[in-house]
Amino acid sequence: MEFRIEKDMLGEVKVPQAAYYGIHTVRAAGNFPVSGFKTNPFLIRAVAQVKQAAAEANMSAGLLDRRIGEAIVKAAGEVAGGGLSDQFIVDAFQGGAGTSTNMNVNEVIANRAIELLRGQKGDYLLVDPLEHVNLSQSTNDVYPTALRVAAIGRVLDLSEVLADLQGALQEKEASFAGILKIGRTEMQDAVPVTLGQEFSAYAEAIARDRWRLYKVEERLRQVNLGGTAVGTGLNANPHYIYSVIEELRAITGYGLARSENTIDLTQNTDVFVEVSGLLKAAAVNLAKMAGDLRLLSSGPLGGLAEIKLPEIQAGSSIMPGKVNPVIPEMITQVSFQVMGNDQVLAAAAAAGSLELNAFMPVIAHTLLQSLEMLINAVNILNEKCVKGIMADEARCRRWLEESHGFITALTPHLGYGQAAELVKQARRESKNLREVVIESGLFTSEDLAAIFTPGELTRPGVAGTKYLKKGRDKR
Amino acid sequence: MEFRIEKDMLGEVKVPQAAYYGIHTVRAAGNFPVSGFKTNPFLIRAVAQVKQAAAEANMSAGLLDRRIGEAIVKAAGEVAGGGLSDQFIVDAFQGGAGTSTNMNVNEVIANRAIELLRGQKGDYLLVDPLEHVNLSQSTNDVYPTALRVAAIGRVLDLSEVLADLQGALQEKEASFAGILKIGRTEMQDAVPVTLGQEFSAYAEAIARDRWRLYKVEERLRQVNLGGTAVGTGLNANPHYIYSVIEELRAITGYGLARSENTIDLTQNTDVFVEVSGLLKAAAVNLAKMAGDLRLLSSGPLGGLAEIKLPEIQAGSSIMPGKVNPVIPEMITQVSFQVMGNDQVLAAAAAAGSLELNAFMPVIAHTLLQSLEMLINAVNILNEKCVKGIMADEARCRRWLEESHGFITALTPHLGYGQAAELVKQARRESKNLREVVIESGLFTSEDLAAIFTPGELTRPGVAGTKYLKKGRDKR
Amino acid sequence: MEFRIEKDMLGEVKVPQAAYYGIHTVRAAGNFPVSGFKTNPFLIRAVAQVKQAAAEANMSAGLLDRRIGEAIVKAAGEVAGGGLSDQFIVDAFQGGAGTSTNMNVNEVIANRAIELLRGQKGDYLLVDPLEHVNLSQSTNDVYPTALRVAAIGRVLDLSEVLADLQGALQEKEASFAGILKIGRTEMQDAVPVTLGQEFSAYAEAIARDRWRLYKVEERLRQVNLGGTAVGTGLNANPHYIYSVIEELRAITGYGLARSENTIDLTQNTDVFVEVSGLLKAAAVNLAKMAGDLRLLSSGPLGGLAEIKLPEIQAGSSIMPGKVNPVIPEMITQVSFQVMGNDQVLAAAAAAGSLELNAFMPVIAHTLLQSLEMLINAVNILNEKCVKGIMADEARCRRWLEESHGFITALTPHLGYGQAAELVKQARRESKNLREVVIESGLFTSEDLAAIFTPGELTRPGVAGTKYLKKGRDKR
Amino acid sequence: MEFRIEKDMLGEVKVPQAAYYGIHTVRAAGNFPVSGFKTNPFLIRAVAQVKQAAAEANMSAGLLDRRIGEAIVKAAGEVAGGGLSDQFIVDAFQGGAGTSTNMNVNEVIANRAIELLRGQKGDYLLVDPLEHVNLSQSTNDVYPTALRVAAIGRVLDLSEVLADLQGALQEKEASFAGILKIGRTEMQDAVPVTLGQEFSAYAEAIARDRWRLYKVEERLRQVNLGGTAVGTGLNANPHYIYSVIEELRAITGYGLARSENTIDLTQNTDVFVEVSGLLKAAAVNLAKMAGDLRLLSSGPLGGLAEIKLPEIQAGSSIMPGKVNPVIPEMITQVSFQVMGNDQVLAAAAAAGSLELNAFMPVIAHTLLQSLEMLINAVNILNEKCVKGIMADEARCRRWLEESHGFITALTPHLGYGQAAELVKQARRESKNLREVVIESGLFTSEDLAAIFTPGELTRPGVAGTKYLKKGRDKR
Repeated sequence: MEFRIEKDMLGEVKVPQAAYYGIHTVRAAGNFPVSGFKTNPFLIRAVAQVKQAAAEANMSAGLLDRRIGEAIVKAAGEVAGGGLSDQFIVDAFQGGAGTSTNMNVNEVIANRAIELLRGQKGDYLLVDPLEHVNLSQSTNDVYPTALRVAAIGRVLDLSEVLADLQGALQEKEASFAGILKIGRTEMQDAVPVTLGQEFSAYAEAIARDRWRLYKVEERLRQVNLGGTAVGTGLNANPHYIYSVIEELRAITGYGLARSENTIDLTQNTDVFVEVSGLLKAAAVNLAKMAGDLRLLSSGPLGGLAEIKLPEIQAGSSIMPGKVNPVIPEMITQVSFQVMGNDQVLAAAAAAGSLELNAFMPVIAHTLLQSLEMLINAVNILNEKCVKGIMADEARCRRWLEESHGFITALTPHLGYGQAAELVKQARRESKNLREVVIESGLFTSEDLAAIFTPGELTRPGVAGTKYLKKGRDKR
Repeated sequence: MEFRIEKDMLGEVKVPQAAYYGIHTVRAAGNFPVSGFKTNPFLIRAVAQVKQAAAEANMSAGLLDRRIGEAIVKAAGEVAGGGLSDQFIVDAFQGGAGTSTNMNVNEVIANRAIELLRGQKGDYLLVDPLEHVNLSQSTNDVYPTALRVAAIGRVLDLSEVLADLQGALQEKEASFAGILKIGRTEMQDAVPVTLGQEFSAYAEAIARDRWRLYKVEERLRQVNLGGTAVGTGLNANPHYIYSVIEELRAITGYGLARSENTIDLTQNTDVFVEVSGLLKAAAVNLAKMAGDLRLLSSGPLGGLAEIKLPEIQAGSSIMPGKVNPVIPEMITQVSFQVMGNDQVLAAAAAAGSLELNAFMPVIAHTLLQSLEMLINAVNILNEKCVKGIMADEARCRRWLEESHGFITALTPHLGYGQAAELVKQARRESKNLREVVIESGLFTSEDLAAIFTPGELTRPGVAGTKYLKKGRDKR
Repeated sequence: MEFRIEKDMLGEVKVPQAAYYGIHTVRAAGNFPVSGFKTNPFLIRAVAQVKQAAAEANMSAGLLDRRIGEAIVKAAGEVAGGGLSDQFIVDAFQGGAGTSTNMNVNEVIANRAIELLRGQKGDYLLVDPLEHVNLSQSTNDVYPTALRVAAIGRVLDLSEVLADLQGALQEKEASFAGILKIGRTEMQDAVPVTLGQEFSAYAEAIARDRWRLYKVEERLRQVNLGGTAVGTGLNANPHYIYSVIEELRAITGYGLARSENTIDLTQNTDVFVEVSGLLKAAAVNLAKMAGDLRLLSSGPLGGLAEIKLPEIQAGSSIMPGKVNPVIPEMITQVSFQVMGNDQVLAAAAAAGSLELNAFMPVIAHTLLQSLEMLINAVNILNEKCVKGIMADEARCRRWLEESHGFITALTPHLGYGQAAELVKQARRESKNLREVVIESGLFTSEDLAAIFTPGELTRPGVAGTKYLKKGRDKR
Repeated sequence: MEFRIEKDMLGEVKVPQAAYYGIHTVRAAGNFPVSGFKTNPFLIRAVAQVKQAAAEANMSAGLLDRRIGEAIVKAAGEVAGGGLSDQFIVDAFQGGAGTSTNMNVNEVIANRAIELLRGQKGDYLLVDPLEHVNLSQSTNDVYPTALRVAAIGRVLDLSEVLADLQGALQEKEASFAGILKIGRTEMQDAVPVTLGQEFSAYAEAIARDRWRLYKVEERLRQVNLGGTAVGTGLNANPHYIYSVIEELRAITGYGLARSENTIDLTQNTDVFVEVSGLLKAAAVNLAKMAGDLRLLSSGPLGGLAEIKLPEIQAGSSIMPGKVNPVIPEMITQVSFQVMGNDQVLAAAAAAGSLELNAFMPVIAHTLLQSLEMLINAVNILNEKCVKGIMADEARCRRWLEESHGFITALTPHLGYGQAAELVKQARRESKNLREVVIESGLFTSEDLAAIFTPGELTRPGVAGTKYLKKGRDKR
């Protein structure tokens, strides 16, 4: 392999001649072979968008030679579009508050711009990573700004797949609207619901997640770009400061605005805690739903088996014909990891110190990783599981009829005490509760039939009121 | 002690004659001697408010005898006002999704109402805990509704103390506006800021917390009251359902509304995860600020000591004269506990199953405990610490002058490379950087004086631009 | 109320004349009205034991007048025995690394000793909280030592209740040894097990917990007493240092030893993280078991209902006859809180700084609170739930016979592919798998009967091997 | 690309002809495009070791044709040695309790064995992934066993790098033994220590971590191999069961043993919680030390700057000459992630259900990821930071002399009250405390000099006792 020699304040380093990155990247890659996870590609792209905006603003402020500036804009645009993605080699777990990632992008853009200007990689007289690409910037305003940009994009992506999931759940709500079944509270037989109502509850929860994420995007729009090292804006030309946000808004299409207190946003990271908290809320709803899906599809014969999940892979290397609820199981694990990431992110955010949070890289990593996993997981849940769920109506009916759940419907007519007595008697005598009720003479089988319909049992009010009133009037 | 005998489906139990609670409470207290923490009093009060509203609605729907209803309303009002608080004896860590707390309140209100009607405690023919106090309700709609009511009140309380803290921080921002000091990023000397700017960053973060909590109150307004056991509203009279929310709105003064999908809100608890996430964001901001206060006040002689915290208690049982930053230390611990509670709450929320979340008690406990601790801690931080903080201006200046932090201000004039060289030289020769710069002939001491002012160094732009332009023009 | 005036370096304070505590306690109680939780009583007792040991050692080293020393020993002994427990009024969430708790104990013991010497409370010329009770000590060696002492006692208590639980589970293992049932993996029907085997798995897990806790006690025996402020032992007389550990060993009955590096143990708190990690492991096993108990007892008619938990309280305020698995539900919540506390403790331990961990109070609070809750919860689980569990053998059989779980037993004879085909056919035709197998001619009903016994199905090996060999030889 | 067609119970799938994996892997890769993280390579290798052992045992039990068996052994050996590593394509976040990873390994080994037997990939008549490679096994015994094997290896690796780190810290302890400095408790000046003593405390903590990990390896040795689907051993030949552990012990070199209760180890995962808890303890110690290193190296001029960390990369894209404590910052982030992973692992372990824990994949992922990160991070910390740390003795002395920390050394001679008065006076008059003491006439400057030595100030006892006794005797 051929190498070129690059130099910084600490000395010389050999850089592969083919590499677009330079000395700072090589040092950082050598310093942090920690996790094997690379810096999140959506963050890399957002940093490149910031570089593009900065070059435009620097040119417009007369700080940057047009020829150099245009080359930077073009190179940055390529990176923002996903180009040269193998050149971003620094580990996600890096010290330095993101400096190494910023420098990695600076170097790749510089060398690509040099190439566009027909220079040799490493000839930083043509385009310098610091003096040109990073001009008017600091890692400390670039990185938090880029993380906001990346997060906005992914939050909106997540909101979108949640909308799809909500739609699929609502379709199930409609399909299963007429399927009456036993409701269960604390895993014990309770009063009846329809299977459709159960899916309506999932759909509603997902709708809240979707809406929350859609709204939180607004909180991410305030950026500290232009604040440079500590948010005071030292060394940033006021014309540049004004126009760089305009440019970034145009490039990203997001409604970004410069914070009135860039010192605050350089050091405080609570907005990421806020967003991560909402990801956790989504994870909680997904985990709850996944748990239900596993429970409702348990069986196929020795469990509830009220629903059937699509079969997407063989379930066992030893038990023939076994199929497992692998998608809900994956969802549960993703949810746990999102909750864990939230804890990591909050710990890092709380550990910030004075003018900066040195732990931005792990904040970025956990936030974007949680988003990535949720986007993928929700999409898979929708496509490979929810859309194909089928009800086993007979099974639903069986549980309902065997259970004592409907006694509550009779309580308004009987009082809690007498109703409890009947249940006790049915249990004691191992009899069907319906029979015990009829034998008691308190209700006829016609009475019970009139009460025992979805419309009566799963909507507000005392079931069978009208009928019983009429019936009893007759008697 | 005298006892009365009460009876339920499981048999008889002796209840102290003086007690307002009854058999269900006695059983629950005996079943759950777990943590020593009682059910949060704000939750108890909110349950009593729900009982009051339900009694009104039941009367208005013609379901409850006026005389009984009025007694219940009066008794519930007493409990809602903090009365009989020693009668709520069930542990916070209880199974049963809150049933025991609901029954505890039902029994206390029933016996108090009986007393108001001149009956003997335990004479449930007069007022029955279940048939009258709990009429048209289920734990499963009462408890989540009450938790929302309690949370709204406390969230607003927290928002208010945060506003006070914000105010105190802003006063410090103003007082310290002229105190120039070294900024520090990653604990290393960076570019100058004013002490006032540091407090502005704290104030801004707290302002966001305040606003977030103020806004999230809206999300808590949707309640499932009227949904009874599983949210379908079985056994709840439509007239009752309609008016109970009206009544509760009137009693609490909060803009509550019945959810359109009470099944959802009976089983899904993500709104509490959302609120807890915001409490965590506040905890993060408080922990970050507390860390800074400890760091900035470190010393008094062997640390930074740029600020002085009020002395509120002797710091050591062995080291005379030692005073410690005990309030920030308390804040940090509260923050960690709030973050831990958030994790507990989310785990419980995710573990809900089908029509109900059986773990509501720990959700309520952690949410209200975090709120309680934050309200108290913020108030203490404000009164016992922030308001009395004093700056040590001389010390601030000393660090700034000794450090190399101002070199960045010269970079636009020198380029990054040459500036780095000068720093290196100053370090190598252990010289004051200012002298090295002057000796270099690149700037005069007048140049440096013109650059070295708060106005130039801590506002956007290249410091000294105008002066140098003028100066250099002259030359 | 009558008051006395006390004085410290910050000025004068009024102390209730009846109080045993003094000025430092009053200040601390006023500074930290945070959580409403008091300092854990087991910690208070352990601090008093340290005071007792220190007084003995100080006397023996000739540092403390015998008359004063004896009074301190007696007073400390009373507190160690649980006396004057209402005098410890400082909140668990206190700044100052435990100084306030240490001073609270110093003051109470001093005033009680003064009283024993017939003096007036507050007359510290007789017995001084600092000069006598705290002599040769610092909070920084007293508090971590006392926490170890308290933790040892509680860890052993927990180990003991776990042993009881293990015993009860093993009794169920024996009682249920003959009850064959379907095993379930990933909530799907798998191969058969006995109900006894399921309880054996619980017993085994609890046995591990018990043993781990029993063993970890050793790690807690190293203490830093004698290290004073930062572990160097400044101001501690060598004779005192030597004998104070001896005394404490005698008083507590634990095998305590002075660490060879008391500087380390003054600042590092990883041993509490280690212990808390084991509490979490116990919580995990309890949560897993609690989840199973809820699942296995789900029903009573619309769920698995293979076991029946004891009925200990009515389950619903609206659904007559409903009984819920409230003890397992409580266990799950305790488990979540223990996991959350573990996170809090670890965060606090990681945030220690230089010569001390300022966050010892929250470390102590979470560790002892987790221990308290686990001890109580395990005891309740054992007494109110496990001991009374009953099997529903008929129900166990029903699930097993309806399911396809036994097909795996035939796989060695048929191959995975053919076995999977039969399952598929049974599902397709909604037929009983046993019939499908017999119809296929591959096995006779006698073959199946020979395979289908607990001995064959739930022990290692290919079920029915001997029989089939014999049978097939015949054919 | 060329494809072959493979078939399973769900139908046909196209598999790239060049691939060693087969239909189950293709399905799983398609079902779980979730996180982008692949199954940990150490787990893959351990599964291959299990396959190797199983093939040997199956041959020895006469269950597997020697020719096929030998080919499997060879192929598995290649995978165990790191071969074909690009063939393991299933995401770490997979449902199915590890079935997909097990099948991925089964298929790759089968196809490689087929190849060794000169067959065509996909010709499973030669070697079948299920009937031959997976013979006598289930995912449910293979996967937990393999995770133990993988964890043992990595735990020992971590123990080893911790030993190196301990060594480096001890070297610093020795080098810095004579450097007296101010100790700091709660960030406030306390009594003196040596810099060497500070490093001794780090070394001691790391020694505990090292030892704990070394010991916990024993707990991982119990395996459930031979238990098959639920731990009962159904379908596993007793001869096989006996010899497979022998084989695995020989292959791995670890002291593995078959658990006496394989049902327990198939479903309970607390041993991983235990190990993860110890990783968290290590993370806590690392985070504490990293925080100290950042604090002690803060500056270089506006902070404590008692030590200097090696400069390994430029620290800022805007501030020339700035160098940041990037390695300690990385350590802190790794520590937070390890703590977060611990929470994820525990949540997954607690959520297990009946005969299996479906969430084994996330347990494996987080455990092995934490180990990976810690091993790398500790190694980097050692090589790139600790080894090169240098002390700034002058700076250490300056803080000590400016501070009041030594007053505690005078307390035994003065009493706490008078000592506190002197400190107060020095503060009030902004005087050097030493001068105030001398002016008070209580000590001469010779007295102070005799007290003020490392030997007197940082070892147990009252500093200057001998000297003062002698001196005072003279007077």
